[in-house]
Amino acid sequence: MIAVTIGLDIGGTKIHGIAADVTRPDAVLAEVRTPTVLGPTGVVATALEVVKHLVEALPDDTTVVAVGAGIPGAVDADGVLTNAVNLDITEALDLRGALSSALSVPVTVNNDVNAAARGVATWLRSRGEPEDVALLSVGTGLAAGFVLDGRLRRGASGLVGEIGHLAVVEDGPRCTCGQHGCLELYASGRGLARQWPYDGPGPEPVAVFDAADAGDERAIAVRDTFLHWLGEAIRIVTLSVDPARVVLTGGVMRLGPRVIEPLFARLGSDETASSFVSSLRLRERTVALPVEYPAAALGAAELATDQGRSGSWRS
Amino acid sequence: MIAVTIGLDIGGTKIHGIAADVTRPDAVLAEVRTPTVLGPTGVVATALEVVKHLVEALPDDTTVVAVGAGIPGAVDADGVLTNAVNLDITEALDLRGALSSALSVPVTVNNDVNAAARGVATWLRSRGEPEDVALLSVGTGLAAGFVLDGRLRRGASGLVGEIGHLAVVEDGPRCTCGQHGCLELYASGRGLARQWPYDGPGPEPVAVFDAADAGDERAIAVRDTFLHWLGEAIRIVTLSVDPARVVLTGGVMRLGPRVIEPLFARLGSDETASSFVSSLRLRERTVALPVEYPAAALGAAELATDQGRSGSWRS
Repeated sequence: MIAVTIGLDIGGTKIHGIAADVTRPDAVLAEVRTPTVLGPTGVVATALEVVKHLVEALPDDTTVVAVGAGIPGAVDADGVLTNAVNLDITEALDLRGALSSALSVPVTVNNDVNAAARGVATWLRSRGEPEDVALLSVGTGLAAGFVLDGRLRRGASGLVGEIGHLAVVEDGPRCTCGQHGCLELYASGRGLARQWPYDGPGPEPVAVFDAADAGDERAIAVRDTFLHWLGEAIRIVTLSVDPARVVLTGGVMRLGPRVIEPLFARLGSDETASSFVSSLRLRERTVALPVEYPAAALGAAELATDQGRSGSWRS
Repeated sequence: MIAVTIGLDIGGTKIHGIAADVTRPDAVLAEVRTPTVLGPTGVVATALEVVKHLVEALPDDTTVVAVGAGIPGAVDADGVLTNAVNLDITEALDLRGALSSALSVPVTVNNDVNAAARGVATWLRSRGEPEDVALLSVGTGLAAGFVLDGRLRRGASGLVGEIGHLAVVEDGPRCTCGQHGCLELYASGRGLARQWPYDGPGPEPVAVFDAADAGDERAIAVRDTFLHWLGEAIRIVTLSVDPARVVLTGGVMRLGPRVIEPLFARLGSDETASSFVSSLRLRERTVALPVEYPAAALGAAELATDQGRSGSWRS
């Protein structure tokens, strides 16, 4: 008998589910992607459908011992979701309750960036590194997740890692959060789209990077602003909690070396400013997660397994 | 027999030592303050003198089971001190080795802000609150310390809490660290002294606050700038690790309500900007440590006791 945990990365576009061996949390035994039906009923139904397809894909001698979900929004200790506007969920949703009553296995629900931080820590452990990391998720928005000294930092009030809403530019444009000049207005996909409106094929980040490569001066300025503030985000997490690693992930990081190379060139040239800056070792500390690594789904599964081990499963 | 741990808060002006009951870490049985002799030999000699005076002040039936020291500078896992320029210690100093060989008891050495964070967490516990805190030390410089989910965050490379060296003002004045516009150029005692040079009696922070109260427009601007950036420091730690408490301490905080009241007024008026900002609950989260609470000395003692409990004392 193989005991497996199912991890769900619930996003506004799709739900990505994996089934992982509980004894080897980065061994993916089955994988399913299904478009998300938005709204509370749709999200629950899509999640249950993904679990069903995963179970069908597993060999007969496997048993699902737990399900973990990572979802964008604030999740309390009881697995109740709030603030999930990207999923068209405007009222509090007892996601843990809805999934566990339908599935009859223990369910654990976490914020998706926290789940991804857990998954990234496992990835680091598989490389022989300590589980000590600040994850920077550079997607539509900008957020951080932390696994410190091996433990996921959940925070006191659902605000952990919300560095995208540090107001860094005085008199900057208004953010959806009501403040002005927030970090994520510059260092995120939404920030690039805001400064480089584009309705052609493909995502905005590619368009602005292509235009910059072609020599468009305004595109170069937008790209440089993005890189500057992404560097600041790396400094903020480093000078706060001093993680062994800063790991970059999220949609914009699909640009790969087109972001990493000029980012590292900037971090390198900043080091010439002072021995203090070079002592931060930002280039050695920072690494991009491989684009296809399913950090949030694996992390969600691992958090469900952890909770089972600690004897606090509730079904 | 009463088992006690001695805690030393080693500063550039004085060494403050306390003897605490190991079973009640905030019960101070004896207290000594001695002016610091600077330089490696002087610091070690002063520390030993403080320990001697504490032992003499204790009843006969007490046994010192460990000594903990908190000291400004970078301290590695072996208790070796570097970067302690305020103590005129320019080369690496094996402080743990020097003290433990002279005292014949286990010695633990930590950075002073980290020791204070541990002491503040104990203070919170004594108030029935969780040990989950970002300490902001607003002294000559500005630095943070973190006890998260009950554990002191030591960090990967001696940089934990160095938020004072986030460069927040483009083209700002040059900092001693070599960067420009660092946060501590505004939100610290050194920052106030830089903007309000003063050679009268008493410390600069009092002078600039007095002048501001008397209506001096430039002093009001310096004070408002200080308060603005202190508020930003509170936001940075909150939106990074979301601590249950932000606790303010350090020399500038001796101004007490003269800082706290206008700071809270600012945080309150910022809340009107958006529901996101008010959701941070910065005023409820933030509290000033009572001025005379010996957080660094108590925390240094407690870290020594903890290390003993975990069985990793080395003498």
